[in-house]
Amino acid sequence: MEVSWEESVTYSINTIYLLFSSYLVFVMQLGFAMLCAGSVRAKNAMNIMLTNVVDAVVGSISYYLFGFAFAFGDGSNSNPFIGTEFFALKGIPSGSYSYSFFLYQWAFAIAVAGITSGSIAERTQFSAYLIFSFFLTGFVYPIVARWIWSSSGWLSPSSSGSLLFGSGAIDFAGSGVVHLVGGVAGLWGSLIEGPRVGRFDAFGKPVAMRGHNSTLVVLGTFLLWFGWFGFNPGSFDKILVAYPNTSDQGNWTGVSRTAVTTTLAGSTAGIVTLFGRRILVGHWDALDVCNGVLGGFVAITSGCSVVEPWAAIVCGFVAAWVLIGLNILCLKLGFDDPLEATQLHGGCGAWGLIFTGLFAKEEFIIQAYNSGDSSVSRPYGLLLGGGWGLVGAQVIELLVIFGWVSITMGPMFYTLHKLKILRISVEEEVAGLDISSHGGYAYNALQQEGNRTSILR
Amino acid sequence: MEVSWEESVTYSINTIYLLFSSYLVFVMQLGFAMLCAGSVRAKNAMNIMLTNVVDAVVGSISYYLFGFAFAFGDGSNSNPFIGTEFFALKGIPSGSYSYSFFLYQWAFAIAVAGITSGSIAERTQFSAYLIFSFFLTGFVYPIVARWIWSSSGWLSPSSSGSLLFGSGAIDFAGSGVVHLVGGVAGLWGSLIEGPRVGRFDAFGKPVAMRGHNSTLVVLGTFLLWFGWFGFNPGSFDKILVAYPNTSDQGNWTGVSRTAVTTTLAGSTAGIVTLFGRRILVGHWDALDVCNGVLGGFVAITSGCSVVEPWAAIVCGFVAAWVLIGLNILCLKLGFDDPLEATQLHGGCGAWGLIFTGLFAKEEFIIQAYNSGDSSVSRPYGLLLGGGWGLVGAQVIELLVIFGWVSITMGPMFYTLHKLKILRISVEEEVAGLDISSHGGYAYNALQQEGNRTSILR
Amino acid sequence: MEVSWEESVTYSINTIYLLFSSYLVFVMQLGFAMLCAGSVRAKNAMNIMLTNVVDAVVGSISYYLFGFAFAFGDGSNSNPFIGTEFFALKGIPSGSYSYSFFLYQWAFAIAVAGITSGSIAERTQFSAYLIFSFFLTGFVYPIVARWIWSSSGWLSPSSSGSLLFGSGAIDFAGSGVVHLVGGVAGLWGSLIEGPRVGRFDAFGKPVAMRGHNSTLVVLGTFLLWFGWFGFNPGSFDKILVAYPNTSDQGNWTGVSRTAVTTTLAGSTAGIVTLFGRRILVGHWDALDVCNGVLGGFVAITSGCSVVEPWAAIVCGFVAAWVLIGLNILCLKLGFDDPLEATQLHGGCGAWGLIFTGLFAKEEFIIQAYNSGDSSVSRPYGLLLGGGWGLVGAQVIELLVIFGWVSITMGPMFYTLHKLKILRISVEEEVAGLDISSHGGYAYNALQQEGNRTSILR
Repeated sequence: MEVSWEESVTYSINTIYLLFSSYLVFVMQLGFAMLCAGSVRAKNAMNIMLTNVVDAVVGSISYYLFGFAFAFGDGSNSNPFIGTEFFALKGIPSGSYSYSFFLYQWAFAIAVAGITSGSIAERTQFSAYLIFSFFLTGFVYPIVARWIWSSSGWLSPSSSGSLLFGSGAIDFAGSGVVHLVGGVAGLWGSLIEGPRVGRFDAFGKPVAMRGHNSTLVVLGTFLLWFGWFGFNPGSFDKILVAYPNTSDQGNWTGVSRTAVTTTLAGSTAGIVTLFGRRILVGHWDALDVCNGVLGGFVAITSGCSVVEPWAAIVCGFVAAWVLIGLNILCLKLGFDDPLEATQLHGGCGAWGLIFTGLFAKEEFIIQAYNSGDSSVSRPYGLLLGGGWGLVGAQVIELLVIFGWVSITMGPMFYTLHKLKILRISVEEEVAGLDISSHGGYAYNALQQEGNRTSILR
Repeated sequence: MEVSWEESVTYSINTIYLLFSSYLVFVMQLGFAMLCAGSVRAKNAMNIMLTNVVDAVVGSISYYLFGFAFAFGDGSNSNPFIGTEFFALKGIPSGSYSYSFFLYQWAFAIAVAGITSGSIAERTQFSAYLIFSFFLTGFVYPIVARWIWSSSGWLSPSSSGSLLFGSGAIDFAGSGVVHLVGGVAGLWGSLIEGPRVGRFDAFGKPVAMRGHNSTLVVLGTFLLWFGWFGFNPGSFDKILVAYPNTSDQGNWTGVSRTAVTTTLAGSTAGIVTLFGRRILVGHWDALDVCNGVLGGFVAITSGCSVVEPWAAIVCGFVAAWVLIGLNILCLKLGFDDPLEATQLHGGCGAWGLIFTGLFAKEEFIIQAYNSGDSSVSRPYGLLLGGGWGLVGAQVIELLVIFGWVSITMGPMFYTLHKLKILRISVEEEVAGLDISSHGGYAYNALQQEGNRTSILR
Repeated sequence: MEVSWEESVTYSINTIYLLFSSYLVFVMQLGFAMLCAGSVRAKNAMNIMLTNVVDAVVGSISYYLFGFAFAFGDGSNSNPFIGTEFFALKGIPSGSYSYSFFLYQWAFAIAVAGITSGSIAERTQFSAYLIFSFFLTGFVYPIVARWIWSSSGWLSPSSSGSLLFGSGAIDFAGSGVVHLVGGVAGLWGSLIEGPRVGRFDAFGKPVAMRGHNSTLVVLGTFLLWFGWFGFNPGSFDKILVAYPNTSDQGNWTGVSRTAVTTTLAGSTAGIVTLFGRRILVGHWDALDVCNGVLGGFVAITSGCSVVEPWAAIVCGFVAAWVLIGLNILCLKLGFDDPLEATQLHGGCGAWGLIFTGLFAKEEFIIQAYNSGDSSVSRPYGLLLGGGWGLVGAQVIELLVIFGWVSITMGPMFYTLHKLKILRISVEEEVAGLDISSHGGYAYNALQQEGNRTSILR
């Protein structure tokens, strides 16, 4: 029993690639924290940052104890819906899964709750947040991950058994598994909590409620962009895989192309938002552009590895309008999601799933899921002539995620609501969560000028 | 047609190295955004951050569509001045260029406009900025990149044809190609726009106009330092290249040495600025030190791979005085560049080109440009006895960059100026760009206290 | 003399791994700067950020000139206490040490003074800081590094000679070498300077003295977490090392496991602090959680590579209580360390050394220090039945670090104190260091409202 030279090289290269990608994905947690902090009012900044820290620390332990097991465990009771081994990393490293794979998946898991934290910002009791974060990261999300990302999953595109519609759903880095899950959870949280006090006037007209610090929003956006280079290109898991019947291509090509499609989709969405919002509201809005860029990233996350660069531009273009449209719709409907997380991660995530069903290229699907084995043939993008198999599986993924998250998170939020432990009191909301629950304001200047309400609200 | 094991390993290693370097270079965009935001007044923070986001998103699309083609395209009409293929990545990956190479070059391209954005901060119309950013990133910069970095370029040190003065210009990571280009563009922008309202009093005496947030300046500086580890050591493009006739050296040695010279040059410049400014102005100024560090990095960027660590210290020492001297000169001349970008990126970038001509070591040049083939001989640093070939080519690069950027960006800015779409009105400038063009202040506290002018100005 | 293909691959892989780890460790410098800035009052923000920049730039030069030589030099006068070659990198790269190794060690060296800067914040003369930083980074720290990390060191666990107690001290990434050193230096600095003006009232009761910006604290904490992925997993130095008698394991396994143990220890400490402080003070405090997370990281840094994931949870659990307990004790004793650096880096660092002595697993020790050679046997964790050899060496390390730093830094601070150049005057302290020593406030709003003391204090 000896590790050969070739194996040592392969393990080392793939580990470097996956570990450093994990670190980048982890940076997204900081990105969310800064984005969220900047987008809420100063009196709630400490609260939302704490929720982001809590997502990381509570999520680490719950994902270690059972989340990873639910998602990727096999064992004797293995089934396509929920895993049953690797609790507390028992059995890891296994033949299939290394510590680095765990770390990469961990970084994804802690990101999900961060998405939803934006939807329920500025009005949620902290103890309710703890329950929500634990439940989403430890149970609801890992189950979805199993269905699509575990090779045992019933929706998996790389299952060793039969693939749904001969295809399985292609959600390469998680427009659905991560972003739609977070967005749907946010939808129910926002709906059940209702809008923030003062967000709509007596006639239902929206009242602007600006975040307190745009610098933090830009900081968060760029950090998320940086982290997305781990999220999308990193999702190949291995980089040292040569594609047969090519002279110089392998996963290194796919990984790099994924970085390019990601960049182009986000950039396009940013530009479209810049000009779109300029036309709609009459000024150049930096915060809109930031959200637009993120919407483009969310949308391309599903198909990033399987589409041509030009298609990424289409993806970003539509994503921008999805976000703009949903934001207008939400205002009309009196729906208040402080970070637009439902619209951004839910809406653009859903679009991303469909986009992949329309534009995925067969050659690239085979690279991503069959190591480039050109003897295989698979359903691919409907608009490229690839038939209904793939887009059908994508729609199924969209529907089951919406359904699963709704039947789990909806009742959870509703129960907390009925128990009156979900939302803070009006008095606390007016005063702000930081002073009522966290012992003081995020900024000392506020602390000492608490009575100068103009700064606080 | 099959990728061999050795090729797979080589591609994987080089791709990891280049992609992660690209991600670091991308962080510089965030670094610029934070540095710029902190260095302007609060009323213009949103504006300058938006320009940095726009540089990234507009630059992505323009560099994808034609910038990369202008710089690195060859094709049948290939010539040493402008490339003619690879528009919209058609033909990529080619035998010579991978997606990862494109991504690395993209990260450089979007950085250039960010440099200039500082020079024209706090007084430029946003629509003029869009035109400027598109033109610089998509056309002016790629042409310079072709001359020096494409192997077809007429100034290239690695051309397969004959080298200028038998040497070609050595601008390893772009003291000239990136920083001098951005600095000269900033020079013309600043000159044509003129100083900010109130920057000089009726007698021409400068009035201090401090940035609003030093924390952001320090944040930006450290992020730029972090990113520079991608910028300079990453510019080898490939790390798996052994140097013949050595027992253990290869590009891995050159890459690591480059990280060391970069660090030493920036650090030295920081220390010299700390004490130099202490003597000149009487206090220890953190912002001066930050700019000093950046000046050292800008200067070493040209020669980082081809000089000894001790020479990097010389480079940083002089860079600090170049910056200090130019800043004094600019104040005397009534020139107002809010971020000192002309002085820092232009001045220290020019010094960097000359420095390389004086101190480059032949052995290291051959490592960087001839894969360490010790049978080659090349001109090297004048002060080390390497003759006039290299320093001559460096001077040529300096002059042609100054000329090219001047004859393109000068008329562009002047035309916008004559059309009265370059600079905002005095009223808007006093009120601030954020409220006049971007729908509100970056900070909500300002938004609601708009009449408390002491905070705003 | 030729580099073989296998050697080229090995050097390239290990260089990528070590360089990018270095870059992450460097980010910790930014993390410290932000954490420190946010934790002090606005009037001292510029000062503390400048100290962090100075640690980097002064540290670079002093570590280049002699720090590295003291730590890792061998040469003819080589001895287990202080190195005597490699001054100014003369002789580097050597057979043993590459430029990348230097860069990695440099990133550690500049971090040490940053720890202590928190302890002496808000009241130290800047020129005294320069002396302190130069002395600690250039001399005191490198000596400790030699004892434990150089294979010539008398406490080294990988010495080619005899190991202390047959074991040597295991301080894999420096709970002792880095954190305890910084913490003990901070202890003496704080003690000799005394508490900040107004920190304790006339009856010795502590008066809350909140930092001015919690956002910066959270930013700094996440950046430190990010950087710790370079600090701990990077400390293997080489990733391409196969463990004999395994089918698929090597340093790639150890590196990944180290990332996991690090994450779990920090997360556990964060959770314990969250609930522990909730019980003790009655609210959910984000800043406490941040410090708790960091305390967990500090503690696991010693044993990160040699313990099971479950043990990392034990490590973090205890670390949280060590920090909570020491903070209470310090308040009672009237000891004022503005950043809790003594308690956090000193206290949790000391616990980390002991923890390793109790929980280190023999198999993992052999992986980390004997390349997995299972024919070796070594002392290991006392609680796992590994005897007293290891824990004895750990205690010795703890004691000699306390002693060495005390006899060097104590007299240094005391001399500066006696010369009256250590602490600023009461007037300057009340006004703030930024306006008295650095030419102005960090925030322009303060600058112009200097007389509105409510913002400033």
